[in-house]
Amino acid sequence: MDNLDRYAARYSAELLDHVIPFWLRHSLDREHGGYFTCLTRDGQVYDSRKYVWLQGRAVWMFSKLYNELEPRQEWLDAARGILEFLRKYALDPQSRYYFSLTREGRPAFYQRKPYSAVFAMLGMLEFSKATGDAALREEAIGLFFRILKWIDDPTLLGRPSPPVPSLADVMITASMACEIARVDPDSRYRDILRDCLRRAKQFYVSGKRIFLEYPPAPTPEGRLFCPGDSIEASWFLLHALEFAPDDAMRALLLDSIEGALEFGWDREYGGLYYFMDVDGLPPLPLESNMKLWWPHTEAIYAAILAHSLTGAAKWLTWLERVDSYAFSHFSDPKFGEWFGYCDRRGELTNTAKGNNYKGCFHVPRMLLLSWQCLNRGKPAQTPAR
Amino acid sequence: MDNLDRYAARYSAELLDHVIPFWLRHSLDREHGGYFTCLTRDGQVYDSRKYVWLQGRAVWMFSKLYNELEPRQEWLDAARGILEFLRKYALDPQSRYYFSLTREGRPAFYQRKPYSAVFAMLGMLEFSKATGDAALREEAIGLFFRILKWIDDPTLLGRPSPPVPSLADVMITASMACEIARVDPDSRYRDILRDCLRRAKQFYVSGKRIFLEYPPAPTPEGRLFCPGDSIEASWFLLHALEFAPDDAMRALLLDSIEGALEFGWDREYGGLYYFMDVDGLPPLPLESNMKLWWPHTEAIYAAILAHSLTGAAKWLTWLERVDSYAFSHFSDPKFGEWFGYCDRRGELTNTAKGNNYKGCFHVPRMLLLSWQCLNRGKPAQTPAR
Repeated sequence: MDNLDRYAARYSAELLDHVIPFWLRHSLDREHGGYFTCLTRDGQVYDSRKYVWLQGRAVWMFSKLYNELEPRQEWLDAARGILEFLRKYALDPQSRYYFSLTREGRPAFYQRKPYSAVFAMLGMLEFSKATGDAALREEAIGLFFRILKWIDDPTLLGRPSPPVPSLADVMITASMACEIARVDPDSRYRDILRDCLRRAKQFYVSGKRIFLEYPPAPTPEGRLFCPGDSIEASWFLLHALEFAPDDAMRALLLDSIEGALEFGWDREYGGLYYFMDVDGLPPLPLESNMKLWWPHTEAIYAAILAHSLTGAAKWLTWLERVDSYAFSHFSDPKFGEWFGYCDRRGELTNTAKGNNYKGCFHVPRMLLLSWQCLNRGKPAQTPAR
Repeated sequence: MDNLDRYAARYSAELLDHVIPFWLRHSLDREHGGYFTCLTRDGQVYDSRKYVWLQGRAVWMFSKLYNELEPRQEWLDAARGILEFLRKYALDPQSRYYFSLTREGRPAFYQRKPYSAVFAMLGMLEFSKATGDAALREEAIGLFFRILKWIDDPTLLGRPSPPVPSLADVMITASMACEIARVDPDSRYRDILRDCLRRAKQFYVSGKRIFLEYPPAPTPEGRLFCPGDSIEASWFLLHALEFAPDDAMRALLLDSIEGALEFGWDREYGGLYYFMDVDGLPPLPLESNMKLWWPHTEAIYAAILAHSLTGAAKWLTWLERVDSYAFSHFSDPKFGEWFGYCDRRGELTNTAKGNNYKGCFHVPRMLLLSWQCLNRGKPAQTPAR
């Protein structure tokens, strides 16, 4: 078994033995539907609200496992129970999506952002692949175009301010359009992806080979760098190139993965910072120098993807470094799933397995995509169990 | 010079030599009005936006120094320059207050909360005392009653959700009503203060002798404890007792200062946590175990106030402990003003002197109020300079 096979074996075991079982065992609300994400280390619910970003993400994740790994009924049932709750309760009277709901489905909080809708859309689309539900697929695609309108005009979401171009908007647009392009050959999705690739360049700082969160400017936002977002955007856009090939952009995106790893890595204590000011000025978010789980999951998959595309040894060096940091700091062999939050030194700041922004998504997505990427080109394998 | 005199001398020197000069030297925008709060360690502006909470707070602070320490023209001029900017630009078309403005005064962000208005109100009222401007005083009082309506019905601020009782709302109401009661004998302000004292009890956990952020409940919010808020609320309400005496409440508020210090203090690394879950479950804010400057300023003044009311030696023990932590971690003798943010171990997470929530307020307010409290009952003193 060569080195890459060891990673593949490790990721499949982590996914199927430690991560998905944690969520199936502890998170599903069999009484009211949906799933809990605020779980302690051992899976106790410490907040029964349903966070809509995470409901949509879990529908996507369980459906994706069902569609691409094997058709296990419990995965499809989990996706269905969450999706039904989401569709029943998450819409406000103007057909916008709430941020959170009570356990029973009553509105708890409305966030003036499109992300709840984005993950609902991705969940609906992936679930429609599992069941062949054409009406649901059309509903997801309709929501995609509604989200594009919200991005263009945030006053529709209740924001008084005019739109500000953001890397996040390009990322989510590319992510949704890629998923649709896989099931719908209509050329407009390819046009949208080409447009995302073009728009991404406005956030790119060529000297450091990173994407900033907003177009460069002498303001805290115009200097804000989130290594996790930069890396995640890079691999989303590498996927987009499948539908809109562009060799120069491919080179830039590989560069941007390396640049973000180099600039975002803490050379003293290890790990990727959450936020940085590109000029070393004070960043506004208080939690900037913390180490969060998800920039590391994005970095692992990005390194594997970059290696699969180039074969260059430098990606294996980064993979070894990030994988080693992530598994030693975040993975929890005792109870499953990963911890989420360390301080700069790498000490856990709390031991929750989920909260209002962490659910069944980044860890299993990375494990599945990495495993698939490592196996690509090899004979089809039956999952370990 | 006894021990308390040493604190008084230290605080007056810190205020007049190190803190106020920092803000006067670096923060005032003499071109567009208002003041900058995003300042690096040595006073460079790293974000030119004007944050409205902080504009109002500085108007209050400079006016208070002018009114109660000595009538220095530069303090009044600073207050006026900020107030004029605030009154000219901070209101939206519905006479609600923006959260932030561009350097020139254009709207930058609207926050669906009443705090921008609260600090504008406090600033206007204190400035009206300095100038004897009766119309401005009436404007401030009118705004106070508008804020009470917003608190009762947050949909007026654009929030879809019904109001949730919060310690913060009781605190700001008590703070504003106290300031008005000092200049207006109308009995309704005393009634409002009595009502605040009554409402505060719904947040009190008698077993731990602390105020929670919301009424106790088995949810993250219903378990959320912010030592700084609990202590600040306690001293605000002790001030309110001046207008609505109540011996049982006085005992409870002294207990709540001690309870918050005992429960909120990190026995391993020292300092007061930012947020805690009262039952030890994971708190949702990522920055919970950080040590921020302002809970320490509130604790210093609360200990001094409690000592002045009771003479009990235990308050001097707490004063010594908190003062020592605060001055060794946050004070910056080299450039003036205080740093704001340490990690749990007490290492600075950034070296900014101000940002979107830290301006000319908590540090000088604590220094002034503490100095005044330590001097009370002594012959009137001329400030050091």
